[in-house]
Amino acid sequence: MNTRTPIVILNFKTYLESTGEQALKLAKISEKVAEETGVNIAVAVQHADIFRISAEVEIPVLAQHIDAVDAGGHTGSVLLESVKEAGASGTLINHSEMRMKLADIQEMVKKTADNGMGSVVCTNNVETSAAAATLKPNFVAIEPPELIGSGIPVSKAEPEIVEGTVDIIHDISPEVTVLCGAGISTGEDMQAALDLGTEGVLLASGIILADDPKKALLDLVGNI
Amino acid sequence: MNTRTPIVILNFKTYLESTGEQALKLAKISEKVAEETGVNIAVAVQHADIFRISAEVEIPVLAQHIDAVDAGGHTGSVLLESVKEAGASGTLINHSEMRMKLADIQEMVKKTADNGMGSVVCTNNVETSAAAATLKPNFVAIEPPELIGSGIPVSKAEPEIVEGTVDIIHDISPEVTVLCGAGISTGEDMQAALDLGTEGVLLASGIILADDPKKALLDLVGNI
Amino acid sequence: MNTRTPIVILNFKTYLESTGEQALKLAKISEKVAEETGVNIAVAVQHADIFRISAEVEIPVLAQHIDAVDAGGHTGSVLLESVKEAGASGTLINHSEMRMKLADIQEMVKKTADNGMGSVVCTNNVETSAAAATLKPNFVAIEPPELIGSGIPVSKAEPEIVEGTVDIIHDISPEVTVLCGAGISTGEDMQAALDLGTEGVLLASGIILADDPKKALLDLVGNI
Amino acid sequence: MNTRTPIVILNFKTYLESTGEQALKLAKISEKVAEETGVNIAVAVQHADIFRISAEVEIPVLAQHIDAVDAGGHTGSVLLESVKEAGASGTLINHSEMRMKLADIQEMVKKTADNGMGSVVCTNNVETSAAAATLKPNFVAIEPPELIGSGIPVSKAEPEIVEGTVDIIHDISPEVTVLCGAGISTGEDMQAALDLGTEGVLLASGIILADDPKKALLDLVGNI
Repeated sequence: MNTRTPIVILNFKTYLESTGEQALKLAKISEKVAEETGVNIAVAVQHADIFRISAEVEIPVLAQHIDAVDAGGHTGSVLLESVKEAGASGTLINHSEMRMKLADIQEMVKKTADNGMGSVVCTNNVETSAAAATLKPNFVAIEPPELIGSGIPVSKAEPEIVEGTVDIIHDISPEVTVLCGAGISTGEDMQAALDLGTEGVLLASGIILADDPKKALLDLVGNI
Repeated sequence: MNTRTPIVILNFKTYLESTGEQALKLAKISEKVAEETGVNIAVAVQHADIFRISAEVEIPVLAQHIDAVDAGGHTGSVLLESVKEAGASGTLINHSEMRMKLADIQEMVKKTADNGMGSVVCTNNVETSAAAATLKPNFVAIEPPELIGSGIPVSKAEPEIVEGTVDIIHDISPEVTVLCGAGISTGEDMQAALDLGTEGVLLASGIILADDPKKALLDLVGNI
Repeated sequence: MNTRTPIVILNFKTYLESTGEQALKLAKISEKVAEETGVNIAVAVQHADIFRISAEVEIPVLAQHIDAVDAGGHTGSVLLESVKEAGASGTLINHSEMRMKLADIQEMVKKTADNGMGSVVCTNNVETSAAAATLKPNFVAIEPPELIGSGIPVSKAEPEIVEGTVDIIHDISPEVTVLCGAGISTGEDMQAALDLGTEGVLLASGIILADDPKKALLDLVGNI
Repeated sequence: MNTRTPIVILNFKTYLESTGEQALKLAKISEKVAEETGVNIAVAVQHADIFRISAEVEIPVLAQHIDAVDAGGHTGSVLLESVKEAGASGTLINHSEMRMKLADIQEMVKKTADNGMGSVVCTNNVETSAAAATLKPNFVAIEPPELIGSGIPVSKAEPEIVEGTVDIIHDISPEVTVLCGAGISTGEDMQAALDLGTEGVLLASGIILADDPKKALLDLVGNI
């Protein structure tokens, strides 16, 4: 019996298949699979969808990004306080499609902690993972950008990057949980990720764009 | 009797006073004042607040910004389709606190129109107002940045910029409605804006940070 | 006899083939071809290469970009005054690989004129060309981004965009000179560009990455 | 006798007082003071000034910034290879006036090392200094942004930030040299910086905007 508690963060990105009503439907599927399998599944949804989704599901709802601003005159920016009040319990930070300045990452990791929210800092290699770990976010999710959306799982294509990240983060900040992502879509990919020492995965298109997202999600986590 | 139908766009920015529950309260006040006075009032709210506010008020709810992306893999970006489905009927574009690239402004003005949404392009002087007008948004809102939040109304401090903008936009694209903003807070400021040829105002702190926002809003539009 | 005076702006971009010593060599070739053919050739070079190139050639040397800052504390930005003093007589603005905010384009077009320098604003379609023309730069260079570096000349692939740009700019600001670019590399492409009403071309890889840049440049302008 | 070899990096920023001819003059003054005092002085100059200055002085000339691009089609970007060939022996990275994304900082620190150039990563607090140190640049320069240009020396106003940075960097990457900056202008400020465990300072306006830069520089380093 596997006693690990793997974590799956499903990134809804800005696909039409995961916007508005469709996002809500996908969040409910995720919740159902989490209940059925006992795996921790969280959904990272678009800002405009946080309120309606967090009102209707019990699983954690994350923002995909927050801007490095404090309350004030910042028209159009995404304020941590706004996503928190809408129901988000955490946020992705520095996703490869929304890279942030080092000073802003540090400030937002601190601000999420100060506000009782979780932080998932995304990184692209061992070196930036080490840097991110010094900032003590809750999670670091290592995702080599060239594999994102490729269908080629990082856990197979570049296992040494995942292992190197796990090792260096355990050295620097053992309390940081390591996830991996990029190209992950099957249960086999997920198992490989766990075998490399991570505690879960961050993934998107493999599930969201699947013909049958529920089946895909069950395939991902059903045998862990 | 003034037969003009002035327009007021209240920009909630990212003030705590206009986030979440407070935003909803302010939107309801805006709706009430719109009903009582017959003035067209719209609210531009944070992305995470669009859904809950548009579900509870009848006045137009705008986004403060959309990112120049189409549906797809753009984690953390604000997709037009997401704010539309959440209930926004239009969006600010290129606010001085969220300036955009020319190519992106053009693309998003077109995309809002293609999606049946309204566009309010913010500009900083006569020259950029002329450029914006060639793109044929629904509104151009001229706001000299140095006066934003100053309490010094543009309609008094720099009337020639407002008049120059009205003139050149009427020349280039007469179907574009001209608003002005920056430093506007009183009914006198608003009347001055209308007297200079605009059809309304875009404003924020003068109302949102007022001790009594309803009173401030009534003062702004009560005697027009 | 063709009495038009076509203009060729050769964009060195950041190719190694057009950096440092190689850039100087290419600039001298450009100068030689300009002398031999009587065609106006200008070179747009990297910031670090402006000084040494402008000291050694008589043809106009342009910057590829300037940042929208004034003199002061802006570490790492490219100040107009610095490229001017290094010998640049003008600059590209808003190239597709360095898109700028509308307000910044306006400010820098004005600043170049105020400093006696030339401005070449790059645009991507008819609409943004119209917007750029209202700002009255010396040149607008229309370059559909999808054709840049493609080897498919805009003058053949999308002639209606070039013609539409020429027409609308002549309407809005007849004093603005229209160039076109993207995919241009042969004399035939250049002639097609002139036949569509432009007064020249902006090009890069077709010459810079050619096996024999001098031959390529002669082919481009030799029969105009 | 003080056997430490303090390092002074003079950031020319984009002041008119340190552009073009004036920049060259200031670089020669810096060289003279370095010779007279034996202190290591380097100058970080604008891109367009690197070539002419490095041709005329023997002290190290740094770029103020490089863009995170490789050779290719990146019009207007600052390519490492271009500043290297112009004579720069290193570069500032992530200055507070030109903050960079974490992934870009990592990539450029690596690229400078791979190209035999020095890297000076600027940071704003102890946390980001730790993150920067994991990337193993040659130097980390801690500069609390609120003190830059203030005339209030960081070495006096926030000694705990400087000491904390020295301690954590010595822990993480002892081979990284720590500098500090912000508000430094006198010999007393410099001595305080050294006493806190740094090996030198990064400074700008205190010297560049001084009535007599040579006198100011001599005052800074004359008694170390």
